[in-house]
Amino acid sequence: MKLTKKQLTTANKGKLATHAKQLKFLSDNLSRKGINIESIIKTIQKYEVAIPSWALGAGGTRFGRFGFGGEPSNLHEKLEDIGVIHALTRSAGAVSLHIPWDIPENPAETKKFAKSLGIKFDAMNSNTFQDQPNQKYSYKYGSLCDRDAKVRNQAIMHNKAVIDYGVALGSKSLTVWLADGANFPGQNNFRESLNNTLNSLKKIYAHLPKGWKMFIEYKPYEPNFYSMVIQDWGTSFLLASQLGPKAFTLVDLGHHLPNTNIEQIVATLMSQGKLGGFHFNDSKYGDDDLTVGAIKPYQLFLIFNELVFGMQNNKPKNPIPAWMIDASHNVKDPLEDLLQSIHAIETAYAKALIIDQKKLSLAQKNNDVSLGQEILQDAYQTDVRPILAEARKRAGGVLQPLDTYRAMNIREQLIHDRGANTRATGL
Amino acid sequence: MKLTKKQLTTANKGKLATHAKQLKFLSDNLSRKGINIESIIKTIQKYEVAIPSWALGAGGTRFGRFGFGGEPSNLHEKLEDIGVIHALTRSAGAVSLHIPWDIPENPAETKKFAKSLGIKFDAMNSNTFQDQPNQKYSYKYGSLCDRDAKVRNQAIMHNKAVIDYGVALGSKSLTVWLADGANFPGQNNFRESLNNTLNSLKKIYAHLPKGWKMFIEYKPYEPNFYSMVIQDWGTSFLLASQLGPKAFTLVDLGHHLPNTNIEQIVATLMSQGKLGGFHFNDSKYGDDDLTVGAIKPYQLFLIFNELVFGMQNNKPKNPIPAWMIDASHNVKDPLEDLLQSIHAIETAYAKALIIDQKKLSLAQKNNDVSLGQEILQDAYQTDVRPILAEARKRAGGVLQPLDTYRAMNIREQLIHDRGANTRATGL
Amino acid sequence: MKLTKKQLTTANKGKLATHAKQLKFLSDNLSRKGINIESIIKTIQKYEVAIPSWALGAGGTRFGRFGFGGEPSNLHEKLEDIGVIHALTRSAGAVSLHIPWDIPENPAETKKFAKSLGIKFDAMNSNTFQDQPNQKYSYKYGSLCDRDAKVRNQAIMHNKAVIDYGVALGSKSLTVWLADGANFPGQNNFRESLNNTLNSLKKIYAHLPKGWKMFIEYKPYEPNFYSMVIQDWGTSFLLASQLGPKAFTLVDLGHHLPNTNIEQIVATLMSQGKLGGFHFNDSKYGDDDLTVGAIKPYQLFLIFNELVFGMQNNKPKNPIPAWMIDASHNVKDPLEDLLQSIHAIETAYAKALIIDQKKLSLAQKNNDVSLGQEILQDAYQTDVRPILAEARKRAGGVLQPLDTYRAMNIREQLIHDRGANTRATGL
Amino acid sequence: MKLTKKQLTTANKGKLATHAKQLKFLSDNLSRKGINIESIIKTIQKYEVAIPSWALGAGGTRFGRFGFGGEPSNLHEKLEDIGVIHALTRSAGAVSLHIPWDIPENPAETKKFAKSLGIKFDAMNSNTFQDQPNQKYSYKYGSLCDRDAKVRNQAIMHNKAVIDYGVALGSKSLTVWLADGANFPGQNNFRESLNNTLNSLKKIYAHLPKGWKMFIEYKPYEPNFYSMVIQDWGTSFLLASQLGPKAFTLVDLGHHLPNTNIEQIVATLMSQGKLGGFHFNDSKYGDDDLTVGAIKPYQLFLIFNELVFGMQNNKPKNPIPAWMIDASHNVKDPLEDLLQSIHAIETAYAKALIIDQKKLSLAQKNNDVSLGQEILQDAYQTDVRPILAEARKRAGGVLQPLDTYRAMNIREQLIHDRGANTRATGL
Repeated sequence: MKLTKKQLTTANKGKLATHAKQLKFLSDNLSRKGINIESIIKTIQKYEVAIPSWALGAGGTRFGRFGFGGEPSNLHEKLEDIGVIHALTRSAGAVSLHIPWDIPENPAETKKFAKSLGIKFDAMNSNTFQDQPNQKYSYKYGSLCDRDAKVRNQAIMHNKAVIDYGVALGSKSLTVWLADGANFPGQNNFRESLNNTLNSLKKIYAHLPKGWKMFIEYKPYEPNFYSMVIQDWGTSFLLASQLGPKAFTLVDLGHHLPNTNIEQIVATLMSQGKLGGFHFNDSKYGDDDLTVGAIKPYQLFLIFNELVFGMQNNKPKNPIPAWMIDASHNVKDPLEDLLQSIHAIETAYAKALIIDQKKLSLAQKNNDVSLGQEILQDAYQTDVRPILAEARKRAGGVLQPLDTYRAMNIREQLIHDRGANTRATGL
Repeated sequence: MKLTKKQLTTANKGKLATHAKQLKFLSDNLSRKGINIESIIKTIQKYEVAIPSWALGAGGTRFGRFGFGGEPSNLHEKLEDIGVIHALTRSAGAVSLHIPWDIPENPAETKKFAKSLGIKFDAMNSNTFQDQPNQKYSYKYGSLCDRDAKVRNQAIMHNKAVIDYGVALGSKSLTVWLADGANFPGQNNFRESLNNTLNSLKKIYAHLPKGWKMFIEYKPYEPNFYSMVIQDWGTSFLLASQLGPKAFTLVDLGHHLPNTNIEQIVATLMSQGKLGGFHFNDSKYGDDDLTVGAIKPYQLFLIFNELVFGMQNNKPKNPIPAWMIDASHNVKDPLEDLLQSIHAIETAYAKALIIDQKKLSLAQKNNDVSLGQEILQDAYQTDVRPILAEARKRAGGVLQPLDTYRAMNIREQLIHDRGANTRATGL
Repeated sequence: MKLTKKQLTTANKGKLATHAKQLKFLSDNLSRKGINIESIIKTIQKYEVAIPSWALGAGGTRFGRFGFGGEPSNLHEKLEDIGVIHALTRSAGAVSLHIPWDIPENPAETKKFAKSLGIKFDAMNSNTFQDQPNQKYSYKYGSLCDRDAKVRNQAIMHNKAVIDYGVALGSKSLTVWLADGANFPGQNNFRESLNNTLNSLKKIYAHLPKGWKMFIEYKPYEPNFYSMVIQDWGTSFLLASQLGPKAFTLVDLGHHLPNTNIEQIVATLMSQGKLGGFHFNDSKYGDDDLTVGAIKPYQLFLIFNELVFGMQNNKPKNPIPAWMIDASHNVKDPLEDLLQSIHAIETAYAKALIIDQKKLSLAQKNNDVSLGQEILQDAYQTDVRPILAEARKRAGGVLQPLDTYRAMNIREQLIHDRGANTRATGL
Repeated sequence: MKLTKKQLTTANKGKLATHAKQLKFLSDNLSRKGINIESIIKTIQKYEVAIPSWALGAGGTRFGRFGFGGEPSNLHEKLEDIGVIHALTRSAGAVSLHIPWDIPENPAETKKFAKSLGIKFDAMNSNTFQDQPNQKYSYKYGSLCDRDAKVRNQAIMHNKAVIDYGVALGSKSLTVWLADGANFPGQNNFRESLNNTLNSLKKIYAHLPKGWKMFIEYKPYEPNFYSMVIQDWGTSFLLASQLGPKAFTLVDLGHHLPNTNIEQIVATLMSQGKLGGFHFNDSKYGDDDLTVGAIKPYQLFLIFNELVFGMQNNKPKNPIPAWMIDASHNVKDPLEDLLQSIHAIETAYAKALIIDQKKLSLAQKNNDVSLGQEILQDAYQTDVRPILAEARKRAGGVLQPLDTYRAMNIREQLIHDRGANTRATGL
């Protein structure tokens, strides 16, 4: 299904007057503080976050999975779903594919279809944490870190193949997330595992085409519960530094130990020019993969504060990170989940943009801790939703994506078209 | 120092027009959703939170303490400071005293002076975690839990004395926080410690005058680092249940293990009619005692959501909890810290009050998880600051307490009056 | 497959002389401290821990599952596997069944077969966290807590049916673990969920035959990642207290927030006569389900210290807890995993039994913290493996179960008999 | 006070026969496994760990401090106390001084006195986390990271002075632990703080004499509760790498977020040749500073496993880390606390030394996870106390230091000599 311009325009009708009033009020408030709302609207308007192909179906836990009707059963349908989100928000014009879950049978056609929906191909994701049918060697005890060169080579070849698929689709980056690690003390030798991983990554790195980047994720635990080879940003940074200028660290918000100060990690990585990508989600306990902003919206705001500062003071040059949502749960309609996530990300971004960085810097200079907090809180307490709505409107989207999604009965139609029991590839 | 009505009125001048405009805008927005702003303003206007007498000086850590000039050096000055906060906010009309840090030499006079500032005496706090000069038995190894009946009796007598001071001042409740516990496995017998604590509390309970309540705090660690006798709400609840109807559990936000769902504890305790008190602060790691709302404002909002629901659906009857701020740090002016904390508490409260509980209940009934989240987020994203300002204005306070506090140069005056090196009693 | 007495006797040959020497050495060391090794050997000899039927196949994670050859594909084969473990250790003479994974088609026959292996039926486990094919109502949003009475009734009926299966098999208890909870703020009303759960449990409780017990598990998170209805021991205890004398709390070692002092919870529950059962496993991060003793063996020892003390000072009367191993991972042969777990449990138990409780009590009385620690450490540092070996030998098992298991090529034979790709029911 | 050779020899009398028997038993057991006990005894005999000068008095918490009688009140007495520990254990022949708590008035004399006790001067510790009387600029808002160059310079000069004291005493290294950080979002700019810290460290680094090393500690929180400039090993490693070959990371066991896999950090740092030092203690919650081995002895063993492996496979060359105990609490006699810590460290070390590394490596090669665990557990379950006793005996110490310490009534004598109310400098 594809939403027409007319449908979208119609959806905004009846809401425009109120929106205009609210925008005006916010604009006045901000200009009283010397902030120009226009530049913020433009920044938000340009912002895009990639949708991972596996987030369009219900995610499960090890205890079970409850499906949601109308799930896409192939790549084409997945792109269609992203097309819907993008049409409503104008902020989801990219997809992040996962191989082998989404192998494009005809890349040129897939690319063409995606283009018709305004969708580009962002970072490619490899998978060496599961065994595929007919796979020669098992990843049961590791992949890029494995003691057996044959296992490592298979995993390296897979990553190279993923790059090749990416080239065919126009992607420019590879994300490597490794489940490699150990469940028990004594299972692995830490140094050997790290060393094997570095050497494997070097071979994949050598296969990167010009202009490509490699993003290295880190995670403290799960699915291994004693140790993970790349347990933290320090290890990822170590690897990325030794690999070279195309290698970067990727931060997934859910991949941290309890209480970690993530915004500081973001600042540190940017200060070294090594923050490559971002996976958005939210969590209370571990890698919970909840809707962005559902649990700790203030932390998200503080992270965006660092990103905004880092991009405005970009020395050494850090690339614009590859943004991706990595959240999905089985108690919500996956498309609604994504709409809420996009909204939360842009909310945090817009609030960070209205922080008065000059005043903040001055407060810091004066050791005025109360004032520093006030400045952040003043931006955070501001209701920036009119900025988001205006940005979407200007870009051709709708003022209130979730409302419109519901009013259009999109899920009902998907169930009608695809059936109630389809199951998307993914976890 | 005491602020005059004229000073306060003057402070609002020049800000009234903008405030009125913002209040009108918010009022319109809310009434479009069927919410009457008036009742919310009134609820906030009536809300009061107690200030602990030890929060008026700088708090330290075990690594050191950096003082703040103009700290109050006696109870009279402490009351003066609370008077300033109360004059500005009209929300701090209560003090929570700590014995022996704040023994009133002449209770009647102290009471009279407090009354002149509009300040009542909320829960009294005993201290059996430190040894006082000339104290007969040491609390080094415990107080109410101690193996030695002489130590326990001394601690019991102290608590009774605290109650007596409270009676003289017009207080109606006693808060018992116990540092009792162990630093090492083998140090204590858990069952003996718990049993001794229960029996000691029974004796204190027996001394409670009619109409009094006893609040029992819990804490998982610090200052003991292996175990605390009352390690969690379950243990506090167990004790309170066995003590009787005057005994309640007190929740201090900083007294939980990482990732605890505190709002659920609040709901559970209210469902049993046993939530007696609340100590507000914020934290990222442990009992960090940071300004309320400085780290996890959304969690605070979710807690207030439970409190609002619990007070609106009060069956079995749970008393209105005793509210107190328990935060203080040495990098901020303590009075500014308290003003920010009050603001954060009332912000969370006001946002919780505009949650559409009926719509929420309906969404829950329909298993509409996305909508449930939307309803909470819609309230949370609303900028409720005009409600707070209006409530303060109506009550005789100022629109913007922190700004006014600074504009009036209050800290400078306190330093001038009291000196730069005074030190308030406390940690 | 079934091990013969002869096989077992043969396995010990060649090891007996060394064993005797080591036992003698330990016996001398202990008697020098006034400890009689005989009574400890007897206690260990009598000890039995139940094996859950789902631990005989490889456990997976949400990211995938790697099978282990020769997994049992039905209840009969599961019992056979437990029979092997029991024959080797003489400590695994009980099985804990999970319904519907292990519905006995012919209970009488199943019971008879189990008896032939020396296996009893311990606590029955119900499952309302997954939907079964052809199930009328889904547990997607809850089971015993659900807002919909029809869902609750279905879950209640299922639990009653599980009790009925248990009656037919000779079990005497029901373990209720609920995945019920919420992934997002706003999804559920805490009080309604708790209240519904209590009322549902009451109906199940009413169905308990004479002499039966109900064990209520708690867990802070997973598979729900915002809240779990029974999040901690306090909530379980609350429910158990309100249900009546047949209801108890069950402690699963992996179901706690980071840094929880579990041994204190054990002591507290026993002091109230409400510790009903125990699920053993180990973990570093969350509910990792690792082999018992693989990560925190000292914590396990401290827990057994409380259990030993509690059973020796059993006032109020706490029943002997129902012991069960709840661990399984896919990088180890499941039977080896269980053999290691049994060994770790009995090691901790034996070490706890040689703690000099009188000396410990005296050290505590004298506030001699260093000595209290020394007493625990002295017991812990003692190599008690000869006690375990002797207990097994006397009971008809083998001195070194894991070695014997390997020497007998049992896994190879299971793969030969059952195939390399069978898959046991379970997670 | 100083223990004489005769006293020590006498102390062992009556214990020698039992010790010899136990050593023989262990030696036989080990040699059956192909392990030569002699080389392990020698390794333990050579092992020494530094005692920090602040661990000889009772440590306190922010809630209070309970003294222990007979605390040393000057550097001379502190050295005497270490002399006692060293005489008993022959493993504490080094002191780690803290400036300004232990400024030597006459370094040559201090050095001479220390030498007479067999004590060397290990790493020097600077202190920029507290303000000293008459200090020109305050460290309230930071030291090496401070925005104000004057504050930074003062802190740099202090560190240089500490190096100079160290030169006079024969020390060869400087440990920098920074409390720098922020209590609130908005207080600091992360990048500026990190950059200032790097530049300050560069100036200190430039002052390091030939042959000196600089150790950089990290810590996630406390005394700052929002962020610490050097929050984790990654940040410390980043700084050490940019400073040069004399700079290393120092691992303090208590300075990690919950559940951190510390042994993996150790392995990673050694693999980069950057593990410079180690601060031993134990903890359950945070930086609890409990006696080593009191809470997580198995974790300590796993860490030593990495250290042993790293030193045996030292490529790239990592220096032997500077070992120090950093633990002290106020419920134990500080000297007993240290004796227990030394014992726990050497126990873990000896157990790690009897791990069969070849067998372990082979098990890993075969993905034999159960066996890998068995090998570690076999070493861990072995009672190695006879090795420690023998190593001490050979070196001139006593078989059972804590027993001897008590039998000699050393604390009573210290109280008699120094008084019951002395207070050592420190926290």
